Amino acid sequence: MTRPIIGRVESGQRRSPGAPDPERNGPQAGTAPVPGTARIAVDLLGGDQAPAVVVDGALRACQTDPALTLLLVGPVEAVGTVLAALPTDEHHRVRSLPGPYPRDTTRAAVHAVAEGLADAVVSAGDTGAIVTSAALAMGRWPGVRRPPLAAVLPSAAGRLLLLDVGSSVDPDERTLAMHAHLGAAYAASVHGVATPRVGLLTIGTEPGKGDRLRRAAPELLAGLDLPADARYVGLVEGDDVVSGAVADVVVTDGFSGNILLKALEMAYATIGTPGPGEPPPRAAVLLGVGGTVVVCHGAASGRDIAAGIGLAANLHRRGAIPVIAGLIQGKEIPRTQEVVHEQ
Amino acid sequence: MTRPIIGRVESGQRRSPGAPDPERNGPQAGTAPVPGTARIAVDLLGGDQAPAVVVDGALRACQTDPALTLLLVGPVEAVGTVLAALPTDEHHRVRSLPGPYPRDTTRAAVHAVAEGLADAVVSAGDTGAIVTSAALAMGRWPGVRRPPLAAVLPSAAGRLLLLDVGSSVDPDERTLAMHAHLGAAYAASVHGVATPRVGLLTIGTEPGKGDRLRRAAPELLAGLDLPADARYVGLVEGDDVVSGAVADVVVTDGFSGNILLKALEMAYATIGTPGPGEPPPRAAVLLGVGGTVVVCHGAASGRDIAAGIGLAANLHRRGAIPVIAGLIQGKEIPRTQEVVHEQ
Repeated sequence: MTRPIIGRVESGQRRSPGAPDPERNGPQAGTAPVPGTARIAVDLLGGDQAPAVVVDGALRACQTDPALTLLLVGPVEAVGTVLAALPTDEHHRVRSLPGPYPRDTTRAAVHAVAEGLADAVVSAGDTGAIVTSAALAMGRWPGVRRPPLAAVLPSAAGRLLLLDVGSSVDPDERTLAMHAHLGAAYAASVHGVATPRVGLLTIGTEPGKGDRLRRAAPELLAGLDLPADARYVGLVEGDDVVSGAVADVVVTDGFSGNILLKALEMAYATIGTPGPGEPPPRAAVLLGVGGTVVVCHGAASGRDIAAGIGLAANLHRRGAIPVIAGLIQGKEIPRTQEVVHEQ
Repeated sequence: MTRPIIGRVESGQRRSPGAPDPERNGPQAGTAPVPGTARIAVDLLGGDQAPAVVVDGALRACQTDPALTLLLVGPVEAVGTVLAALPTDEHHRVRSLPGPYPRDTTRAAVHAVAEGLADAVVSAGDTGAIVTSAALAMGRWPGVRRPPLAAVLPSAAGRLLLLDVGSSVDPDERTLAMHAHLGAAYAASVHGVATPRVGLLTIGTEPGKGDRLRRAAPELLAGLDLPADARYVGLVEGDDVVSGAVADVVVTDGFSGNILLKALEMAYATIGTPGPGEPPPRAAVLLGVGGTVVVCHGAASGRDIAAGIGLAANLHRRGAIPVIAGLIQGKEIPRTQEVVHEQ
């Protein structure tokens, strides 16, 4: 495949003038957060080392962002640990939802946003539980069957959006097409990328390569009317996710996306990050549901949790999720002749 | 999942005393090659930048390994370029098979080995063409339906074998089970790993995670009688491929394996290699067919081609493929109740 190069500019030039950049305003970026309060529901029991790392992350986030308030969802003991570490005159910034929960803390934290008790939710809990709770409590946007998790990776050329990274296993090509819409809208509205380039991850860029799904999807993707003047640039490969030279948004299924994300994050943590600037938060944003949901790794550190909270707060302050919803409104996925069963 | 730690030792200690190490004797390792001639068939027209990089790789391999002879399969012009660059008293080391070919140079190079004209073949051509040609011309071993491509990756703990990296897309769990047998035998006989640890690549190590294939495969894999005292260590994730801490052999389908391989190779090329020692050759070995077949990337450099030729030569000299065949002889894959269709 000949890769289109029309309109390709350096990462630093691709941002629309004056475009907001929520990811650069989080605790990891070191710059001032966007003004305005943000009430973040935090799942204290999500993650392999909960509640300890979540408590640590919540405290770090409070210290970084004075306009942040937290709704801590979990055991009173963990809430007490957070309060004990905060000066008394900041205790008003912490509220808690100690239970009883509708099944678990992950679900309760998601429901708190759906019920208006918080503006966004952050959890390092089970991905399936987060996605299912969010879909049920917040609703899915029209045309979204499998809300994808979108992760931002550093690349040699700048930031790159990879989706899905764990929500949609065994998807069909229509689900990949919606991932393309959602990813394009995110890159445009959150990363401020003008005319985002959207690629489909596969093996070998010649037509006919890849598995059943990847042989079925390109025709559908090529025919999409993507939001925000995004362009489908065709098939991309694993190395393109590292170089960032070909696409700003890389679409794949949740299985291959999760494997790739975890491997690259470990590689970058071990030997260093490609590209300019500070690495983005190691957290993923759930797209296609009616609320702001940030998912951290089960193995997240306190620093990762804090970065996730910062990302959630700034996405809320920028109104990112409603903007994305507006951008993909009316973006239908054409029906194809061939039916691939999604099980 | 609790990962077994019994018997885990450092990478450097895991090698059996006196075990041979073909990958360390190639042109990349800088040590003396194993004695003995090796006749390598080289596909001059395989790869994105063929024949130029293949000619370059062939010349590098000749310079590194004086006991190497080449069977160059491709246009007379390219053969002439190789000969012109070699001293006249070394021209006897180069033979050629200029055509007409049974369809293409890739197939002709594979056939040359099947017909006894060469000891091993190296190609950067189309993976599907190489695998199909090899299966037809050399035959598949009993029980092998989808011969996998096995790639060696550097990891923080030493070398790690990843298979399949591009041959078996949409496999079933019985194919993954045979990958486990073949990978275990390779790690034991080529890497000299005592009791290789074999893991299944997936997303999340709790039971029930992953896609349909990954939910079906663990029961079958756990019941295998793996060769060379290898142990199935259960589910592993993308980060484990970088750390190398959990498994010596990582089994997956050719789609996710190829994406992961290409991404990590690009990451390591961009920002550096994890772990000790020189990086292994960027080439994959086809397992489960009756001959020594090394596959280089379509985007291979001359250096990569030379490393692939060195790997092929040393695998041949060590008798690696027959040893692996012996180790997996009689290793049946139990029939399961559930039938997953392989299409």
